Amino acid sequence: MPLTALLSLAMAQQSLPAASPNEAVRDRILRRGYTDLGAYHMLEELCTKVGARLSGSPEAARAVLWAEGTMNKAGFDTVFQVPCMVPHWVRGNVEKATVVGQSGASINAVALGMSPGTSGDGVTAEVIEVHSLQEVADLGDKVKGKIVFYNRPFDVTLPSTFEMYGTAGDQRFAGPGVAGKAGAVGALVRSMSCALDDVPHTGTTNFGDNPAIPSMALGLRSADRLSEMLKKGPVRVNIKLSCQTLPDAPSASVVGEIKGSEKPDEVIVIGGHLDSWDKGQGAHDDGTGVTGAIEALRLIKVLGLKPKRTIRAVAFMNEENGGRGAAAYADMVKKSGLKPYAGIESDSGGFMPRAFGADPEVATQIQSWQPLLRPFGIDYIQTGGGGADIGPLKSLGASLFGLEPADARYFDYHHSDNDTIDKVNPREHEMGAMAMAMLAWLLSEEGLPTK
Amino acid sequence: MPLTALLSLAMAQQSLPAASPNEAVRDRILRRGYTDLGAYHMLEELCTKVGARLSGSPEAARAVLWAEGTMNKAGFDTVFQVPCMVPHWVRGNVEKATVVGQSGASINAVALGMSPGTSGDGVTAEVIEVHSLQEVADLGDKVKGKIVFYNRPFDVTLPSTFEMYGTAGDQRFAGPGVAGKAGAVGALVRSMSCALDDVPHTGTTNFGDNPAIPSMALGLRSADRLSEMLKKGPVRVNIKLSCQTLPDAPSASVVGEIKGSEKPDEVIVIGGHLDSWDKGQGAHDDGTGVTGAIEALRLIKVLGLKPKRTIRAVAFMNEENGGRGAAAYADMVKKSGLKPYAGIESDSGGFMPRAFGADPEVATQIQSWQPLLRPFGIDYIQTGGGGADIGPLKSLGASLFGLEPADARYFDYHHSDNDTIDKVNPREHEMGAMAMAMLAWLLSEEGLPTK
Repeated sequence: MPLTALLSLAMAQQSLPAASPNEAVRDRILRRGYTDLGAYHMLEELCTKVGARLSGSPEAARAVLWAEGTMNKAGFDTVFQVPCMVPHWVRGNVEKATVVGQSGASINAVALGMSPGTSGDGVTAEVIEVHSLQEVADLGDKVKGKIVFYNRPFDVTLPSTFEMYGTAGDQRFAGPGVAGKAGAVGALVRSMSCALDDVPHTGTTNFGDNPAIPSMALGLRSADRLSEMLKKGPVRVNIKLSCQTLPDAPSASVVGEIKGSEKPDEVIVIGGHLDSWDKGQGAHDDGTGVTGAIEALRLIKVLGLKPKRTIRAVAFMNEENGGRGAAAYADMVKKSGLKPYAGIESDSGGFMPRAFGADPEVATQIQSWQPLLRPFGIDYIQTGGGGADIGPLKSLGASLFGLEPADARYFDYHHSDNDTIDKVNPREHEMGAMAMAMLAWLLSEEGLPTK
Repeated sequence: MPLTALLSLAMAQQSLPAASPNEAVRDRILRRGYTDLGAYHMLEELCTKVGARLSGSPEAARAVLWAEGTMNKAGFDTVFQVPCMVPHWVRGNVEKATVVGQSGASINAVALGMSPGTSGDGVTAEVIEVHSLQEVADLGDKVKGKIVFYNRPFDVTLPSTFEMYGTAGDQRFAGPGVAGKAGAVGALVRSMSCALDDVPHTGTTNFGDNPAIPSMALGLRSADRLSEMLKKGPVRVNIKLSCQTLPDAPSASVVGEIKGSEKPDEVIVIGGHLDSWDKGQGAHDDGTGVTGAIEALRLIKVLGLKPKRTIRAVAFMNEENGGRGAAAYADMVKKSGLKPYAGIESDSGGFMPRAFGADPEVATQIQSWQPLLRPFGIDYIQTGGGGADIGPLKSLGASLFGLEPADARYFDYHHSDNDTIDKVNPREHEMGAMAMAMLAWLLSEEGLPTK
């Protein structure tokens, strides 16, 4: 775009002076946030100095110390850990799927989280391609001794990538367990993505009471190639995995707090999760969420705002494969006598914000706040909201909100080597943090009409 | 984000059956666009097979043939070129700025477009830092024989990066000419960006009747370092440039058309520009615009839609340093007797769409279309619109519209080595193309109330 055409635009859009106290706060948040880019600088530290941080790993332990140090540096009134025991799954250094007897037929694959490993020679068996869990049940004995290959792609015609994930994800989450129950000896799952590349995406699989079988995620192009091979005749694949599940390990979520001046017992939580999968750097999932939450509270602190209600930033541990941090936090709150007033979660990436989701009745009540949130990208307050980490607070009385950014890129990176800091734009990330700061401030000062 | 939380969301958001003809068209566009990702596949060809394509270059000539071939392949009713003569500036292989006598003080810099070159030894002079064109005028004789260094950064507290560009861009666009007039022997300009890296961003500078002096853009970190050095004492810099301006060269814009069935003389143009700067691959500026325009028309064609009015995709030549393609197209239209009904331009990158801009009275009239455009990311129809290439059509009677995507990332890439295909998300790009297809369809079928 040429510059000349923009000069008049720039003149026309100069922001007007603030007309109300909330507008003044909004403008102060905007100026400070865009100047400091605090969320991005925190994220850069977390991604490059700590890196990927799967629950139970030494990196996750370092992440807890990092979060505590970062919150202390921000000068919150109180900073403390909420201990929890977490699952401790380790990938090890062998994860390989090989087509037997077809040289040159490479498969990009990674172990699914919580998969068992294999013996030294691995598991070798004929592959059977399916597109649903039901199909495995229908196949009956034909699955016995086979490697089941779940290959139903994302339905790209759905309007949102989260919907695509929601409608394809049972293959990864429950598919291997269902295959194990049917007598399969291994599972391969098409990655939960619609990217045009061949990078495999890990994520948890849940065997429940079913037999646990070695399970891997395939890159999308690898899945396409394997499917093509299967059209020509039987294909045997060897799976070698060194992953294993160790005994539960001690860990913690980290809480930073600014005490409310009028209603200190009513607590507003801004949260993201501190743990990540062990691929990439956990940048968008959920480095942006956890640093966005800390930055939101830091903005309130650094601007000298004194909230009526207590506001907390919570770095939740173990969202990815257990939710133990969320449970421990809710448990602590229940015992403390504090009143969870509201929760705001960011766990959909650090992209350009578009909306806040909220319970239907709450979304209706706070439509008047939308103009105050629009400069942070919030074009809508709509039905939705919540998230895995603040979810348990709902039954304790909290109203739940979810930050909903532009979603097109999320599953290009999610749980893969591609989830790195270079995929995060500093301004887009800061907008999310500022949006949460503003919403927390409005919840604190205005309150919810029906509460 | 965990999968379980999403299953209920996915169920809740299943799209409802279409209730009107326009909704049916919208849903067909969505399904076909997301399935084909035609805009991205075209862009991939343009970026990797043609690459950067500055007006007058052999690559620009190849781009013209590529656009013509791509439109013919799409099966439009008519495809033709609109010839124009274009400026022909070439960078050459020497572009270097060096701090004299300070080893290790590197400067990342590129020639500004239309800058003259230097003799073999280059230009060496003391640097004087300024923050505005006015400051140069105020300095009077102190500028004589110096290299003027414009170092006013983007005002990052403004809500939009286009506003930042609009308020800082005079330094690049007019600054070197003003410095030349004041007797300076060279100009260095802080790049038009707020990225956290040190990649320099080129772009046109306009000397008008002022003396043309060798002029370069500095990476932002290089500009910061140079400013730090100047605080400690005088700094001399050597500029060596091999760029030159050759005689104007023949080129062309490319037009593809679907003839209107009822009002063929009323023409709706969907446009982007085919030329780019000679850094990176011209992906977001404006590969996404030109491929988005072609894809918008291709979607209408491939879905078998028969518009009442004529719809054209136009790949405009020479937006970056002359606007000759836009002028030649408007001139041709004027002579043809056709009635320019509307123009839609995409020249703000292929990011997630957020809005269409339109003239105030038009924006008011078509608010009822917004729900039909929302699935393509269009959260608002607001005042704004137009663009450099469709601008000349306004005085011929066209109503102008501009696609306005999320803007945070645009100036990270703009006119630099970073403007490459890997920065484009296929779905976000397709959303822009689909939004333009839908808007063109509504303009064609519904018309504008006051026209």
